[in-house]
Amino acid sequence: MVLVRQEIGEVLRDVRLQKGRTLRQVAGRASVALGYLSEVERGQKEASSEILASVAGALDTPISVIMREVGDRLAIVEGLSTVESLSQVPDILTDELVAQFDADMALR
Amino acid sequence: MVLVRQEIGEVLRDVRLQKGRTLRQVAGRASVALGYLSEVERGQKEASSEILASVAGALDTPISVIMREVGDRLAIVEGLSTVESLSQVPDILTDELVAQFDADMALR
Repeated sequence: MVLVRQEIGEVLRDVRLQKGRTLRQVAGRASVALGYLSEVERGQKEASSEILASVAGALDTPISVIMREVGDRLAIVEGLSTVESLSQVPDILTDELVAQFDADMALR
Repeated sequence: MVLVRQEIGEVLRDVRLQKGRTLRQVAGRASVALGYLSEVERGQKEASSEILASVAGALDTPISVIMREVGDRLAIVEGLSTVESLSQVPDILTDELVAQFDADMALR
């Protein structure tokens, strides 16, 4: 099951690190407990919409930017599950793909 | 304050109506109480990541599609807040914009 809170946590953490801020700084500006923010970043706690807005504000990042990134990462996660199921593609198709790949490489 | 749960609720409701399903049908398939799903759709309750995944599944819609739409709508909401603050633009700039608009219209 793909869990939204895990992607939200990862995005919040990545934005925070990109901006060179510590957990303590962001938690302080957002008025949330440091331990709580840490759990949100690790995808262990659901953040309420109010806390999300507050943390986004503390990161000087619009909440829409954060949620769009969450959507994009979820799409990759859901896309990867599709790729993983490639093993279920009939061998004949796989053989054709390999042959096509070999042909493409030969042209270089 | 822009609240993520309000956009999530609207998107879930819109997807459900687009697919011509009732609250009862979706709640049943997602194994959540009808009243609870209704509150989530109206932005009154935060849905956990597990419930979001379950409702998205009941709507036959990837959670990434839902969250991308949420991000896009949040961007519009945040964009609108920017437009609303246009009243804080100095009058001299507004006058220039109006003059420019009039000039553009004259060229048509």
